[in-house]
Amino acid sequence: MTANTTVTVHDPTLRDGQHAVRHQLDAEQIRTYAAAVDAAGVPVVEVGHGNGLGASSLQVGRSRLSDDEMLATAREALTHSRLATLLLPGWATTADLRKAIRHGVDVVRVAAHCTEASVTERHLGAIRELGAEAQGVLLMSHMAPPGELAEQCALMVGYGAQAVCVFDSAGHYLPDDVTARITAITTAVDVPVAFHGHNNLGMAVANSVAAVQAGAHTIDACARGFGAGAGNTQLEVLVAVLERYGHRTGIDLRRLADAADLAERTLMPAPPTIDSTSLVSGLAGVFSGFKKPVLAAAESQGVHPWDIFVELGERRAIAGQEDLIPDAARSLAAQGASR
Amino acid sequence: MTANTTVTVHDPTLRDGQHAVRHQLDAEQIRTYAAAVDAAGVPVVEVGHGNGLGASSLQVGRSRLSDDEMLATAREALTHSRLATLLLPGWATTADLRKAIRHGVDVVRVAAHCTEASVTERHLGAIRELGAEAQGVLLMSHMAPPGELAEQCALMVGYGAQAVCVFDSAGHYLPDDVTARITAITTAVDVPVAFHGHNNLGMAVANSVAAVQAGAHTIDACARGFGAGAGNTQLEVLVAVLERYGHRTGIDLRRLADAADLAERTLMPAPPTIDSTSLVSGLAGVFSGFKKPVLAAAESQGVHPWDIFVELGERRAIAGQEDLIPDAARSLAAQGASR
Repeated sequence: MTANTTVTVHDPTLRDGQHAVRHQLDAEQIRTYAAAVDAAGVPVVEVGHGNGLGASSLQVGRSRLSDDEMLATAREALTHSRLATLLLPGWATTADLRKAIRHGVDVVRVAAHCTEASVTERHLGAIRELGAEAQGVLLMSHMAPPGELAEQCALMVGYGAQAVCVFDSAGHYLPDDVTARITAITTAVDVPVAFHGHNNLGMAVANSVAAVQAGAHTIDACARGFGAGAGNTQLEVLVAVLERYGHRTGIDLRRLADAADLAERTLMPAPPTIDSTSLVSGLAGVFSGFKKPVLAAAESQGVHPWDIFVELGERRAIAGQEDLIPDAARSLAAQGASR
Repeated sequence: MTANTTVTVHDPTLRDGQHAVRHQLDAEQIRTYAAAVDAAGVPVVEVGHGNGLGASSLQVGRSRLSDDEMLATAREALTHSRLATLLLPGWATTADLRKAIRHGVDVVRVAAHCTEASVTERHLGAIRELGAEAQGVLLMSHMAPPGELAEQCALMVGYGAQAVCVFDSAGHYLPDDVTARITAITTAVDVPVAFHGHNNLGMAVANSVAAVQAGAHTIDACARGFGAGAGNTQLEVLVAVLERYGHRTGIDLRRLADAADLAERTLMPAPPTIDSTSLVSGLAGVFSGFKKPVLAAAESQGVHPWDIFVELGERRAIAGQEDLIPDAARSLAAQGASR
């Protein structure tokens, strides 16, 4: 157990929170929140469409603002905090990347499913060439065991990643799961390691503390946990708890609480809570964005949505595999499962 | 660390949740929720005014229903679950107690501030004589160190308590705090030990797991965390997490999730979330019910409510000491603190 560690808090409220408002944040919302956390001393502020650079589309939702507008607005509001953004190689082109870095982005995260690090190679290389900090992200990281995650992280470091991040995208982890994975990764690579939690099992803060104690350097967290479903690790709560443990964040907690109040008033209809869909998707380790098609399939087949999520977990369904949902519902109905 | 423990889940949704709705739950709300958790196999259901038997009053709020009506309604709805209620010796008379037990209450909890176990003696004795199970509760338990808490628990066992409960009333604990206290208590007494958490620091579920691992037999939790401020440990999340750890609760989780959905629809305006008042009161170890007078004093003295909570924590203010609030605010203003 590491006490008195310095922890870098990375705030993706203005990127991951977009999922909760269909990517509709406007310039005033971005400007005022970015200025508030900048004033509180949050070291890194991540901004963008929920799915990252170039993702605004009919398929995953058009954002209110273009990438250019979002990044320029945030850049202007930040006086000390570094500006970060994220990209998924399926959406962002090298041209998107070049424009983002021209807008003053300091850190670019390149994200891939936890077993697919190889798809990050080209973008990580391009970010390094363009002079920004390159970070590699593994999504749905509970789907790979600690050793494999560590290998995938080592691949990303080989491609030029200057930090690696594991996302608990489904909110499935308990603290021991996090300890095992962060320990394996910090042993395998010598760049900073970040952890990004979701609160489906009410464990996001406890998991983040476990990550720090296992050697994580950076923790992601959003004001009031702003994000889809059960939300992310709650930023102001995380900072308070890290300080109770004797870790240093460099953040003014009273100002951060004011920024979180602002976020609650101006960014979100209501702070996230853990509903039954979030709970079962976290338990089953399934993407919580499946909620709507699962409810529809449950209705049409007369089975309980809970059972469909459990079945999708057993089938190891990942985001994009929505076609598994009606099939899972039909097979449950055939087995005689009922609401 | 104890694995594969059997944990008794105690559900005070219909008592502690009353604080969030000014004690206004009606008979239909009580009946349908009690029936739903009974069907899910929740072993103990606690019902009453938020402050317990005999507390309905102008001072702390009149409940919509009388104690008699609440207990009779719940008793009728429960087929397997035991019925519990709570009392504070300042409010409840022996006559209240006798009526409650005549209504079929199986378990009565007698609660006192963590250093004042002696006030529970008469009521614990009366409960035993009347043939119900007597449990002793220590409120605001973070204000006593582990050794003193254990001594206070031993006193209550001497008075006839057949179980002892520690309440983290301010939501101040981190898991290590809980481990130290539950360990000290289980060493000192040989009756079952219960833990009751609040979520001010986002740690209610993690703290409850720590309590079980330190030997607690019973964990309190409310549907969706229903309760004042940041709310209680979230019942359905707790049960899911305990099962992930391999502990047994005897509860049907899918049915429990349905009961929690019902609770969200029928009992509460919205599930609790952690706002800045809840956060700072948890951090400072202060009763979160101080919110309104703190905001008023902050306004009138031009100081930040955050600083008043911190000051009240340093003065070790407890519930009922509202008169400390204006004084704390004035002294901060005199020191030149500002919003």
